[in-house]
Amino acid sequence: MTMGFDDAARALVEIGRRFDARGWAPATSGNYSVRLDDGSFAVTRSGRHKGRLQPEDILRVGADGIVIGTGRSSAETALHLSLYGLFPGAHAVLHGHSARTVGFSRAVTASEWRFTGHEMLKAFPGIGTHDAEVRLPIVDNSQDMSVIDDAVAPSLGAADVAPAYLIRGHGLYAWGADLDEAERVMEATEWLIECELAEAAFRKGLA
Amino acid sequence: MTMGFDDAARALVEIGRRFDARGWAPATSGNYSVRLDDGSFAVTRSGRHKGRLQPEDILRVGADGIVIGTGRSSAETALHLSLYGLFPGAHAVLHGHSARTVGFSRAVTASEWRFTGHEMLKAFPGIGTHDAEVRLPIVDNSQDMSVIDDAVAPSLGAADVAPAYLIRGHGLYAWGADLDEAERVMEATEWLIECELAEAAFRKGLA
Amino acid sequence: MTMGFDDAARALVEIGRRFDARGWAPATSGNYSVRLDDGSFAVTRSGRHKGRLQPEDILRVGADGIVIGTGRSSAETALHLSLYGLFPGAHAVLHGHSARTVGFSRAVTASEWRFTGHEMLKAFPGIGTHDAEVRLPIVDNSQDMSVIDDAVAPSLGAADVAPAYLIRGHGLYAWGADLDEAERVMEATEWLIECELAEAAFRKGLA
Amino acid sequence: MTMGFDDAARALVEIGRRFDARGWAPATSGNYSVRLDDGSFAVTRSGRHKGRLQPEDILRVGADGIVIGTGRSSAETALHLSLYGLFPGAHAVLHGHSARTVGFSRAVTASEWRFTGHEMLKAFPGIGTHDAEVRLPIVDNSQDMSVIDDAVAPSLGAADVAPAYLIRGHGLYAWGADLDEAERVMEATEWLIECELAEAAFRKGLA
Repeated sequence: MTMGFDDAARALVEIGRRFDARGWAPATSGNYSVRLDDGSFAVTRSGRHKGRLQPEDILRVGADGIVIGTGRSSAETALHLSLYGLFPGAHAVLHGHSARTVGFSRAVTASEWRFTGHEMLKAFPGIGTHDAEVRLPIVDNSQDMSVIDDAVAPSLGAADVAPAYLIRGHGLYAWGADLDEAERVMEATEWLIECELAEAAFRKGLA
Repeated sequence: MTMGFDDAARALVEIGRRFDARGWAPATSGNYSVRLDDGSFAVTRSGRHKGRLQPEDILRVGADGIVIGTGRSSAETALHLSLYGLFPGAHAVLHGHSARTVGFSRAVTASEWRFTGHEMLKAFPGIGTHDAEVRLPIVDNSQDMSVIDDAVAPSLGAADVAPAYLIRGHGLYAWGADLDEAERVMEATEWLIECELAEAAFRKGLA
Repeated sequence: MTMGFDDAARALVEIGRRFDARGWAPATSGNYSVRLDDGSFAVTRSGRHKGRLQPEDILRVGADGIVIGTGRSSAETALHLSLYGLFPGAHAVLHGHSARTVGFSRAVTASEWRFTGHEMLKAFPGIGTHDAEVRLPIVDNSQDMSVIDDAVAPSLGAADVAPAYLIRGHGLYAWGADLDEAERVMEATEWLIECELAEAAFRKGLA
Repeated sequence: MTMGFDDAARALVEIGRRFDARGWAPATSGNYSVRLDDGSFAVTRSGRHKGRLQPEDILRVGADGIVIGTGRSSAETALHLSLYGLFPGAHAVLHGHSARTVGFSRAVTASEWRFTGHEMLKAFPGIGTHDAEVRLPIVDNSQDMSVIDDAVAPSLGAADVAPAYLIRGHGLYAWGADLDEAERVMEATEWLIECELAEAAFRKGLA
């Protein structure tokens, strides 16, 4: 399931192009990583537009978070590494967001959102029916990655918690056993939030 | 009107690309099929991202629902085959959905929605005027395909019922005499639901 | 300013691709025409998906509305020809629509909408300031093109009326001295309606 | 950081294509410029569709606003030059807008909008935390560029003011040390406004 650096770099460039096309990578925001076959990580460089990444915008980072070579990796590299530490089966971590999802994170004051009754829940690993409830943790933003990490880590890993979390006013993290799975979790979570808003709009509008 | 397997496979790959571009194929959701000239069916493989299908992601399935060759066809293959059984003239079945349409299906508690007065109704076969009413059946979701099938089948086939139905919290099925017609029904139904929401929003907003 | 048939056919194929990308050509809806240098017209064939037109889907039609050659031109050819008759300077007529705009046409009960104070008004020929009011006629739908034509024709041509009209529950017509101008009027009118809805949503949401 | 004319022309053609794809360049609206290495400016020609610019649609303009060569530069060239005069470090100015943002500018009656608590604020130069407030000036529209300029200039340049402003009912200006930065400010500002609307919609819808 692990990848070498060159394959990972190519795949992350393509993820950036897709996320930008969906509106999930505005203004150089977002960052993506892959756990490599040698235990190091491929991580996007800081400050580049994700829709126009080049392979040289993907850096190799050690388990200690230090770039192997030159360049500055994403300011949020620590959050990626923390997730890889918590979940040995995770091989890809993606961070991006629509304006809708960040607006949602600001409108919701609770520390999680519960999705229920959606066929789309089956996009999350281990969920085999729509007749389920999946929780999405929501934590407050901080410029200190360890504060975010400390706040969110206790919420993660339970069977009914999505492999994803929202940082309020900031964006969405999603991960998976490989890039395809991480992207599927990302797409499903963004879609579920869009669906909740559409449902609310129809309830108000059709009333 | 029938197609051979290779033509069907190419056409379904292209349908996936188009649906993904429209946001109707998030997170590997959706499944598509064509009735082939030899009485078997081309059906999308389970679990692939529909925006990036390859011809080898299209499987041949017998009328008994069993894959001819290797691979697992979509979990919803039975719903496709049931529609082909009910409608001998149907040669293509498409399942996909926007978040908007699934939100709509959750907001509406009735077992159908009635579209009236839209020029777009003429996209449905047999409807020649906007001055008509077309019904879209809405049934509850189940992980047992036969439960969905038993619930929806009695609603289908009347002259004023669209060749389409909604599974609540799940998505939209549409079919036609060929792929172009099935896609036209799909586009028309998605568009009509978007139009109802826009109408409601303007009524509230401009009031 | 006039075009030959081959250039017009290529240009209309491209218009279809653009309108489809914008969501203005769902389910084979829409039709487009150009007044040719010999006094005949290039008109889209009936029933084709506008996002995937081929040059052979553009037909030559005489001033009498009869196809020169084979094939059936758009069912709305008469509306195009009527506009060319009313406006000798018009060389292109476009018909398409977003779901939003048709929802708008159903929410508004009046026979016109007045846009005021938009810089975008300057996209309409003859308007040189945002400090203006431009009227967009809205008429009821009919399957008899002459009924629509009789209803809308008296509203057209005044200096403060857009070179465009809405058929309620159906869609938007726009025209211009050439294809670029007709497309500009189309884009401006769709944009203005979207802007009105956004303004209303912010007024409600930010209140 | 400065560019020659040919590089600037190529880059502005590409900006037009991107803005059009995002819906920020409807109906020939928008205009873009770059400060060149010889002190003159590359400015988009008036009246062209920004999604289909050609290099010959980019003109060279002197510091006095007069085109060097032939052609008419954008009617808003004076606003670009005024910004370059106010901000010697600015090398690119972009003007475009979504319908949403212009609707927002009409719904807000105040002379500025304050964004607070968004991680996205860090897209603005000099802002290093979400725990900040950034002000976006909003001024009334005029056909006299000097009236707009006189109204907005006093609001610009403070540390908590975005390098961007909104003209009410007209559109958004954004600038930066280079084209990438100007585009980043544009994307961030459009995104923030979309996010505010989504937040408001969720607050109303989920209540």
